[in-house]
Amino acid sequence: MTSTTDLRPLDAPGRELLFTEARTSNTWSDTPVTDAQLHEIWDLARWAPSAANGQPLRVTFVRDAAGKERLLPHVAEGNQAKVSAAPVTAILAFDPEFHEHFPTTFPARGEMMRENFAGDAGMRAGVADYNAALQTGVLLLAVRSAGLAAGPMAGFDRAGVDAAFHAENGWRSQLLVNIGHPGEDPWFPRLPRLADETVLAWA
Amino acid sequence: MTSTTDLRPLDAPGRELLFTEARTSNTWSDTPVTDAQLHEIWDLARWAPSAANGQPLRVTFVRDAAGKERLLPHVAEGNQAKVSAAPVTAILAFDPEFHEHFPTTFPARGEMMRENFAGDAGMRAGVADYNAALQTGVLLLAVRSAGLAAGPMAGFDRAGVDAAFHAENGWRSQLLVNIGHPGEDPWFPRLPRLADETVLAWA
Repeated sequence: MTSTTDLRPLDAPGRELLFTEARTSNTWSDTPVTDAQLHEIWDLARWAPSAANGQPLRVTFVRDAAGKERLLPHVAEGNQAKVSAAPVTAILAFDPEFHEHFPTTFPARGEMMRENFAGDAGMRAGVADYNAALQTGVLLLAVRSAGLAAGPMAGFDRAGVDAAFHAENGWRSQLLVNIGHPGEDPWFPRLPRLADETVLAWA
Repeated sequence: MTSTTDLRPLDAPGRELLFTEARTSNTWSDTPVTDAQLHEIWDLARWAPSAANGQPLRVTFVRDAAGKERLLPHVAEGNQAKVSAAPVTAILAFDPEFHEHFPTTFPARGEMMRENFAGDAGMRAGVADYNAALQTGVLLLAVRSAGLAAGPMAGFDRAGVDAAFHAENGWRSQLLVNIGHPGEDPWFPRLPRLADETVLAWA
């Protein structure tokens, strides 16, 4: 028997907050969200794991009126009222040039890894897309951990958002996430989850 | 001022467990992980959000010797000892036919959505890959919430794993995750995170 580092499980209120009672908010109070709160979210989310510590996720926090105006034309009609009402809408994206940072993020072999990734933009985009999505799952729970609600939305024009916000940095948008305090009647009825027999296999 | 549903932030021990002190485990104790613990993990992770509640993530829990033997030839050499030592290795995958379940997962418009997705396998694979990755971020935190350690590994032969485990269900592997109690010296030195200026933008 090898030794074990004991890990304490999360308590019941934490499980409810992040998992079993967690909900996507569909209405928003006008209670503001401060930049300090957005930094608090990132200071949790930054510790998400990623392949070779590549950290491809990038975040643009849109929180002033001019930013919202720039974003709205690219948002699906059914999501526009929510984006207008939320104090902050985060544009989540991946950086297709994330490999340039390997000397920072993986010091032991950074130069070599940067070179390995430099030659294959298609492979790189796949790795960045996947790992930024995994980081996004962690970020959504970080929003809730900060006592705020998250409203992720896939319905928007990615090319339009990239032209409006990512022309200089080359980031590629994946998801919009409203962030704030829930407003009136914020939760839709809980949608069903798939049966274990559909999702889980055993070997 | 619209009304606000108050959400309580996660407490400090919860933040350390899931974010600020969370680490990828690289060694494993032989303390067993029970099927009940694996169900406990899924009973948290199942509540992850996904686009249109599509839930494309699928999980194969490999925990017996025959299963490990089937898996090992497809694992990168540097990861084989970890897979052998861990009580459980989960194969995370997406189901490219996840749209078949829309009548269950999105009852109000399920038949229509199933039909909309049926004609475009390429779009479907992209949506499934992205959303299963997002669900995976939540699942990794669910493992930690159950008091267990997670060791995600991208280094393996996806086609080989799919041939060995997914021949019948058609799932497409994305990540391997060792699950168990950490063994001796389980943590590598913490790798650096990117500076806020590199990751965050403001609008």
